[in-house]
Amino acid sequence: MPTTTEPAIDLTAAAACAAGCAPAEGLPAAQAEQLAALLKALADPVRLRLYTRIAATTGETCVCDLGDFGVSQPTVSHHLRKLREAGLIDSERRGTWVYYSAVPTALAPLTPLLNG
Amino acid sequence: MPTTTEPAIDLTAAAACAAGCAPAEGLPAAQAEQLAALLKALADPVRLRLYTRIAATTGETCVCDLGDFGVSQPTVSHHLRKLREAGLIDSERRGTWVYYSAVPTALAPLTPLLNG
Repeated sequence: MPTTTEPAIDLTAAAACAAGCAPAEGLPAAQAEQLAALLKALADPVRLRLYTRIAATTGETCVCDLGDFGVSQPTVSHHLRKLREAGLIDSERRGTWVYYSAVPTALAPLTPLLNG
Repeated sequence: MPTTTEPAIDLTAAAACAAGCAPAEGLPAAQAEQLAALLKALADPVRLRLYTRIAATTGETCVCDLGDFGVSQPTVSHHLRKLREAGLIDSERRGTWVYYSAVPTALAPLTPLLNG
């Protein structure tokens, strides 16, 4: 009796697919587009550090507290703008300083990712 | 009595920072680098759909079930390789087909992001 198990597994998988696989569902296309944009906004080390510092603050974070990430002020401003455009933070200018706060529900689209 | 509140707020903020602000902590640099790489691997609509379908499956997902995302098979293979390189999925070839499964703890680095 032949013991060629690999072809047997092949045939089983092929037969199962030929008979119509019932794949599990993943994220729908529209939801995946939205979540990918959010993740892209966060997928930078400096933006992550800026965002998590702002999010960890009760109330607002003064831009004067966001200068210690080893990048220039224009770079900080660029990253803050990206975070704002993605809906992750809000900003408000009051006089000399701009104040930032995390948008409370902004990370809600990540939930399905973590719940499988 | 003047009612120019904006300069008053300016002075308060400036005085507070001059006296030494105590900013909230964000992610440390090394952790931010690691998390940014993980988020970058997920920050694509097709990769998100592939990953969430694989993660939603109990056990393994045959590559033969990952062909309905409106992209070519080489593109699917490219995205699956990116997910594997990021440590999000494992793969095993058995005969004709490759089988994918989600790495259970791969999304753990996202937890601090969601917990503030």
